[in-house]
Formats: sequence, structure tokens, C-alpha cells
Amino acid sequence: MQVRDIFVSAPGKAILHGEHAVVHGKVALAVSLNLRTYLRLKVTTTGKVCINLPNIDTFHCWDLSELRWLIHNFSGKTRSQRLDAELVKRLREFVGATNGNLDTCSMATLSFLYIYISLFGSGELPSLTLTVWSELPTGAGLGSSAAYSVCLAAALLCTSGAIPVPLKEWDHTARWCQEDLELINSWAFQGEMIIHGNPSGVDNAVGTWGGMLRFLAGKIIPLSRVPLLRILLTNTKVPRSTKVLVARVKDKINKFPSIMTPVLDSVDAVSCTCEKVLSEMTCEPITGEHYNILEELIDINQHHLNVMGVGHPALDMLCQVTLAKGLHSKLTGAGGGGCGITLLRPETDSLVVQGTVQDLRDCGFDCWETSIGGPGVQQHSPLSVKEEILEILNRD
Amino acid sequence: MQVRDIFVSAPGKAILHGEHAVVHGKVALAVSLNLRTYLRLKVTTTGKVCINLPNIDTFHCWDLSELRWLIHNFSGKTRSQRLDAELVKRLREFVGATNGNLDTCSMATLSFLYIYISLFGSGELPSLTLTVWSELPTGAGLGSSAAYSVCLAAALLCTSGAIPVPLKEWDHTARWCQEDLELINSWAFQGEMIIHGNPSGVDNAVGTWGGMLRFLAGKIIPLSRVPLLRILLTNTKVPRSTKVLVARVKDKINKFPSIMTPVLDSVDAVSCTCEKVLSEMTCEPITGEHYNILEELIDINQHHLNVMGVGHPALDMLCQVTLAKGLHSKLTGAGGGGCGITLLRPETDSLVVQGTVQDLRDCGFDCWETSIGGPGVQQHSPLSVKEEILEILNRD
Repeated sequence: MQVRDIFVSAPGKAILHGEHAVVHGKVALAVSLNLRTYLRLKVTTTGKVCINLPNIDTFHCWDLSELRWLIHNFSGKTRSQRLDAELVKRLREFVGATNGNLDTCSMATLSFLYIYISLFGSGELPSLTLTVWSELPTGAGLGSSAAYSVCLAAALLCTSGAIPVPLKEWDHTARWCQEDLELINSWAFQGEMIIHGNPSGVDNAVGTWGGMLRFLAGKIIPLSRVPLLRILLTNTKVPRSTKVLVARVKDKINKFPSIMTPVLDSVDAVSCTCEKVLSEMTCEPITGEHYNILEELIDINQHHLNVMGVGHPALDMLCQVTLAKGLHSKLTGAGGGGCGITLLRPETDSLVVQGTVQDLRDCGFDCWETSIGGPGVQQHSPLSVKEEILEILNRD
Repeated sequence: MQVRDIFVSAPGKAILHGEHAVVHGKVALAVSLNLRTYLRLKVTTTGKVCINLPNIDTFHCWDLSELRWLIHNFSGKTRSQRLDAELVKRLREFVGATNGNLDTCSMATLSFLYIYISLFGSGELPSLTLTVWSELPTGAGLGSSAAYSVCLAAALLCTSGAIPVPLKEWDHTARWCQEDLELINSWAFQGEMIIHGNPSGVDNAVGTWGGMLRFLAGKIIPLSRVPLLRILLTNTKVPRSTKVLVARVKDKINKFPSIMTPVLDSVDAVSCTCEKVLSEMTCEPITGEHYNILEELIDINQHHLNVMGVGHPALDMLCQVTLAKGLHSKLTGAGGGGCGITLLRPETDSLVVQGTVQDLRDCGFDCWETSIGGPGVQQHSPLSVKEEILEILNRD
């Protein structure tokens, strides 16, 4: 046992540019969203495994004997990076998530048990309590399940000794080396597979590496350096179905190929131009013109997404309200409602920010001031965890 | 002398699709706008030439002797289709429109005198009174000057006997044959050259032929048959400079070539798709789906025009107000304010139309219910001229 008490966190994800176009072979840029999921794992001597997920009102405690029974006859070969269908089936029965029951609570429980048993099933099962608190809304396309899976993977891998604890005594936060991140990411991806069935792998990659990723034709390339950008994240809370929206775009491309194909090409060029500008911002002095271009790209892409038919009056409202304050917004993710991002400039006054947040809340939206491009999964000293979150993680 | 009293009218022009893109070698569709300019020409025995242009508060009467003096030593060779620079210079001095004075009143006067003297200068100058009334706002990019020039050309050519009077006793309106229309158009183009310096020729072609024209790389092709479409025409009255807007689009293309080039291609495809749908509507039963597509094309192009940077909050407002009534709008012409068109469906209830017009007027806009695709220049019997217009034309 390498660790008795560990705090980790992982960021959410936003699509900066290229949502929908990515389905049609174009580049998308996924960025870490600094609304984070925090996890505390405490090794205990209670003989119990407890998980507390207060965001989704899910609390479980199992006796180790129950879990031991669950893995009797278990081969313990799940360290390979493919999902063990037999184990998943057994766990589904155990948590009662059979027959297409895919509710968030069951999936989160299943995902934990899968990684826990995969890592410890062939040896001694540790007694532990795990508490998770997330700043991310669930089901909003912001990678909350991936942030959870990444935290689970990092904490459980540390507990198993498969990866070291990176935090030195004097550190507030610390990250793992590339090789360890690969391992965290691959286990997080298994958690995502349990939760989503057929995930793209983008969300867990962003949760693991942070910063920005280029996603093209199924290939995920972490971009070495990107600047941290202040944003507002707004959830219009208009419910939408990603599947329906993806189908709508496809139908429109089939209906008007000569009109829509160039629009996808233009979105591709927006992503590539944005990537170039962000890379310039890390190696030359950042100017107002850099931000002007980022704003222009946001406006252009928002219009293109409207052309694709994935806009929504609530998103128009978001763009209008922020533009009235001189700020530029676009939808992020599937569209048709859901979330939008608003770029804040370095010089944007905090009074303007507060006023904009208030205006957006007055529209009935949820709104957070946060940033994109920040670090991926990291270990925290308790001191580096915000007090209100620490309080939640320290309960029980 | 072929005619002693003639009423003619010519339509305005709207760009249905392709504004700005046409500057970069893409197709534009120009359509006749059934807000018309009406002209009455009465041959008199007063020995005077009088023009009354009440829209622009311009009223002139010249003794024939003044005009005769003006053309002494005049070669009378202006029947060729090129502008006679010497005559223009002499006329500019006569009306006091020298040194870059380009106000609408002077230009309208100059345009009349040029065509009048060109057609009659080598023979006897007729004594006449000419009154013009237009439903078109001036300087709004709706081809008001071209409609004026077309009316002038048609009426003066009839008076000179160069073209026949097409109206039969029992007709309400009548049009000229192709050859006569060519002659009207070429003289109207000379009027436009005097007013605008370097016109594209689209406006006078639409005023002459009506219907719809395809405009590509300087070539103007009248499209044989198009359906008459009911629209609202809205003037936001936000002043704008076409020159500045054209430069803005060019700058954006230079700044983001990989992003903007496909947008122009997409606009081109919008124009071509629209042309195809309109042509289908003239040879097969018109369905709701035809109108659905026309609406989708309007929405797509409006987004593209916003991407080009020629949108305006007043135009966004126009789109929003009409969409609230289920109607689709786009800017027409230069954008950055100016005018927009809203498609009305055949089944759109007149109460909805009236409500929309009222909502738009409440925004401070001017708004007319009219149609596009109607006839070009035509002769009228007095009975076929709306009473309020007839009253104006019969004053003096």
C-alpha cells in the first residue's frame, strides 16, 4: 500500500471549435475546463469499501466480504486494457444495473467497482472510503463522467502502488509523468466505456492531460502548450439529444451538399487557425490582436453552427447578452441548447464579468467564471483544495 | 411625334442571394422589386420642358430656347451607346453640378437632360412636362435611380418614335418586345452612368426586364421564368457605405483566406440552389417544401453574410422579429444596416403579415408588403395606375 489518504482532481472538457464537423472528418479542438471534479480516497481499517457521491445523491458501503464473494473464481486478468465483459456483467447484476438501466448513479458505481476490482481483485482488497465532489453539471456535455473516471483511476492506481504519489511535502499540487498519465488515461477510458458504451476517448484524454487536444479522424493529439484563457461557461439548461442533433447535421449535409460541404471546410479552417493563434500566444507576447482573432473565430463558428441547424434561441440570447457587454460567445458541444462559452479578455473588468454573469443568470441560465487550457489530473495537498470542497470531501 | 401622353413604370431591385460574393466572382441573383417608379410624360405646347420630381423636391422648367442654346454646335452623335463626355460636361455646367457636386437632385436632372438632348438634339426639341413618383426609398440600394432612368428612357424613346407605344386600347398595361427593351436598357444604362459613374448594369437590367437576373463576373443573364414571391421589404434606415462594407469583406478574406473562401463557395451554392428551386416552381406544382427550402437558403445566407462582417444589430432585430412570426429574413444588398427582405408563404395569413409589419414599424423601420419577380418596365393606361399615384402624376 503506497498511500493512505490522497486528494486528486481532474478538469472537465469543452469543445473550443469543431463540434459536429469532427463527425465529418474535420479537426476539433477540445480544451480542459477548469470546473474540476475532486476526489478524496482514504484507506481505512473498517473492513468496508464506501463511496460517497453527494452530487448525484449516491452513497454505498459494502463489506469486503461481499466484494470478495463477487470476485470468487475471478481470473484477475483485467490489467489488460480491454474491458472484461464477464466482470462487467457480474458487477451489473451486483449493483442492479441490468436490462438497460443506465442511470448516472448506477453507472458511476459500476465504473468505480470495475476499476477497484480490476486493480485489487487478484490480491488483498483494501478497505477504503472514497468521496467525490464535482463543480461540473452532469449530462451537460462537459466531460463530468470522464473527470470522475480520471480521478478514480489516478487515486486507485496510487493506492495500488501502480503509480507513485507525485506530491512532495512542500507542493500544493503535483502531476504525474507521461507514462503514469498514459496508465491513468487508459483506466479512465475503461470507466468511460462502462458509463458511455462507445466513448471517443477525448473526454478522458482532456481530463488526464488538460490543456488542449486536437481531435481528427479518431486520433487524439495533446498540444504541448496553450495559454490559459478566462471564460464564462453558461448552461442554458435547455435539454437536447446529441444523437438527434448529429442526425440533423447529417440530414442537412445530404440535403444541401454543395452548400454544407464548404461550411465544414470553413469550420476546419477555424479550428486550424485557432490552434495556430493559441500556439503563437505561448511563444510571443500576447497582444490584443490575438484576442481579436479568437473573438472573430468564435463569432464565425457560431454562425456556422447555426447554418448546420444546431443553434437555439437560448444560445442566440446568450450571444446577444454577452455581446451587449462586448463579449463573444459560441455554443460548445452538441448545441440545440446545452452550454456555451464566452471569451473574457485579460483586460475585461471584473465588474463587467459580474454584470454579465448576473445578466445570464437573469435569463435563467447557470453561469460560472472559469478558464480553459488549465492542467489535467493532479494530486492536491489538502491546503490547495478550496475550503468549501474540502469540507464536503472531509465529511463522514 | 408618336405619343402625346404616356404613363410608364419600372420596378426596383433587390438582391435575393449573392450580394458581396458577386464581387469575388460568385453568382448573384437580382430580382425585380414591385415597389415601382411611375412616370407621366405629357407633350405640351407651352414651349417649355418641365420636370417634376416631388419625391426629391426637384422641380425645373426650362424654355426651349435655353435648351436650344445649350446644344448649339452639338454634333448630335449620342445615339451611339457610349456616354458623350463633352455633352455631360456642358450639362453639368448648365445645372451647376460641377466640382464633384453629386447630389441626387442634380444627378436626376442631369440624367433627364442627357437622354432628352441625346434623343432630340439633332432635330426639333419637343415641349413637354414629365412627372415622376416613386414608391422606392432613394439611396437604399433598391435601384431607385435605375427605375427612374428606365422610365425616362422608355417614355422619351416612345416620344421620339424610336420605339412604339405598346398599349392597345383595351389593355391596362403592356410591355415592349425584346429589341425595344434592349434599346430602353441601353439608354437607361447611360442615365445610370451619369448618376453613379460606374454602375454594374444590374439595376437597369432588372428595371427593364423584371423577373430575376443571374449576375456572374460582369455578365447579366435574365432568367426566363420565375414565380412571383410575396415579401416584406424592410428598411432599417441604418445608414451605411457600400464602399466601406465591400472593403470590410475583402479585408476579412485577406485575413482569413482558408476560412472565408469556402464561405463564398457556400454562398455561390446557395444562389445556384435557389435558382434551381425557383425554376422548378415555374414548371411543377408549388409545394410547401419549395418554400421550406427558400426559407432555409435565406437563413443560411444571412448567417454567411454575418460571417462576412456585413451584419448589423438592426438586421438581427429584423430577423428575430420576423422569426417570432415564423417568417425568415435576410439583409439585401450591401448590409451593415440598409434593407432586408422577409419571405411570405402563400398561406401566410394577412393578420400575421399586418402584425409583422406593425412590429417592424415599432422597431423604427420602414416596411412594405410587396413582391419580387414581377414585370419590368411597362406602359400603363391611366386606369391601371393606383389612384394616389395618379393624383400625384396629374398635378402640375
